[in-house]
Amino acid sequence: MTVEFSTQIRVYIEDTDAGGIVYYVNYLKYLERARTEFMRSLGIERAALSDQGWMFVVSNLSLQYRHPARLDDCLEATVRTAGVGGATIDFIQTVRLDHTTLVEGQVQIACVDRHSGRPRRLNMSIRNPLTSLLREGEIV
Amino acid sequence: MTVEFSTQIRVYIEDTDAGGIVYYVNYLKYLERARTEFMRSLGIERAALSDQGWMFVVSNLSLQYRHPARLDDCLEATVRTAGVGGATIDFIQTVRLDHTTLVEGQVQIACVDRHSGRPRRLNMSIRNPLTSLLREGEIV
Amino acid sequence: MTVEFSTQIRVYIEDTDAGGIVYYVNYLKYLERARTEFMRSLGIERAALSDQGWMFVVSNLSLQYRHPARLDDCLEATVRTAGVGGATIDFIQTVRLDHTTLVEGQVQIACVDRHSGRPRRLNMSIRNPLTSLLREGEIV
Amino acid sequence: MTVEFSTQIRVYIEDTDAGGIVYYVNYLKYLERARTEFMRSLGIERAALSDQGWMFVVSNLSLQYRHPARLDDCLEATVRTAGVGGATIDFIQTVRLDHTTLVEGQVQIACVDRHSGRPRRLNMSIRNPLTSLLREGEIV
Repeated sequence: MTVEFSTQIRVYIEDTDAGGIVYYVNYLKYLERARTEFMRSLGIERAALSDQGWMFVVSNLSLQYRHPARLDDCLEATVRTAGVGGATIDFIQTVRLDHTTLVEGQVQIACVDRHSGRPRRLNMSIRNPLTSLLREGEIV
Repeated sequence: MTVEFSTQIRVYIEDTDAGGIVYYVNYLKYLERARTEFMRSLGIERAALSDQGWMFVVSNLSLQYRHPARLDDCLEATVRTAGVGGATIDFIQTVRLDHTTLVEGQVQIACVDRHSGRPRRLNMSIRNPLTSLLREGEIV
Repeated sequence: MTVEFSTQIRVYIEDTDAGGIVYYVNYLKYLERARTEFMRSLGIERAALSDQGWMFVVSNLSLQYRHPARLDDCLEATVRTAGVGGATIDFIQTVRLDHTTLVEGQVQIACVDRHSGRPRRLNMSIRNPLTSLLREGEIV
Repeated sequence: MTVEFSTQIRVYIEDTDAGGIVYYVNYLKYLERARTEFMRSLGIERAALSDQGWMFVVSNLSLQYRHPARLDDCLEATVRTAGVGGATIDFIQTVRLDHTTLVEGQVQIACVDRHSGRPRRLNMSIRNPLTSLLREGEIV
């Protein structure tokens, strides 16, 4: 598994619900922002929606909610690459506040053709930096 | 001005914020659902995003917030056509709870080319039912 | 497992993303609307946020995304109760278009104290109708 | 009018719609993030929802949409204080991409009692920094 990438997320009123906490659905947005910034850090721009006819979609997700976040909290959303398949990438992700893990889980994304929706083999410009990271992770 | 079209909206937890009320941004979604259902009632499907190369975008909006809605409220979102221009339509809209107006305002939408973003003359299949309604409104 | 409850969901432009499909995060809102309407059908109002000092939070979720939904689709979101614990309820849920399952998964909600966030034993007015349904399901 | 405060906003897939552009409702979130960061820059924390029994709600808004933003754009959301009333604050705001104004408008927020919803006179800790800024703006 690769080293962890992380990005800061500020909680705004838009993110909360009438329970006075972050609406649980919105953590998925935080996790996606972290994946997008992680991809950008590898030189992969427009990963959500390529100009070259493919896009990434989430194919599987599994999340455990441990503690709630609140308005104005400054959170950390993290990403680790757990595996790279032919057309899929598996991530292990968390949302943390200071040293407490609020949410953790696994997200699998799949590369699909934008028109047919069919799985499409990962482009080398995406596969290469991710598998390099995975190999470095093994050595460490 | 035409007669009023209205649609029911249930408030779910997704719509609220930590103030314990509907997040003010979400009324815009309610107003758009009402416009979409109004269009559908006129036989205009896929009004938000036509297959024929055009789409509607909001070009102007002006809203007054009078009273808050809360979780589980069953609201009414209304639409009246106030005018039809070459490439634009003006609506007067409200969100109500029982006989109380919570939010009211004006929304202007513009028909634009999906690729260039340039204004595009309203299709007759949209203009005709709307102007018929406007003429009926004048008589009443 | 109990019989299935289902509710209709219309896809609006607010639900879509630049990939031209429903933004995957928004299915979680559809699933929650279905749970809320299911609770309401059992006479449990304000299940998301009780006036009596407790609320439900999602503690675990696991979803598989099979096919995308699109603008204007009229979907069905379903709920089955899979189990009732001391402070938790397990649901099996789907989002379908006609006879195709687009999304399926499991959602666990937990009853917690609104102030302390600690687990709180399910109120009998919630436990009783759910366990009755579970027993009926076994017989069928 | 005071000098301009601005904050950077990255466009993520969560912000877009099937038209391939930022969903117009989401600019309101960007404008609010800018107001929140502006307040924070004045030492006003938790402006959206005070612990002291009041909160800010939007009472009026008026927006003009000029050009769309797209996925991955790095936008600037700006705030200027246009006036401070007994219980209200008027802001002039924009969303810009490079030197192009995409959205501009006016937002009025009102301080209300969290329980009664009634207008509540602005606290001095909020009024003072804002009126100081207004006076500086006049001199400039």
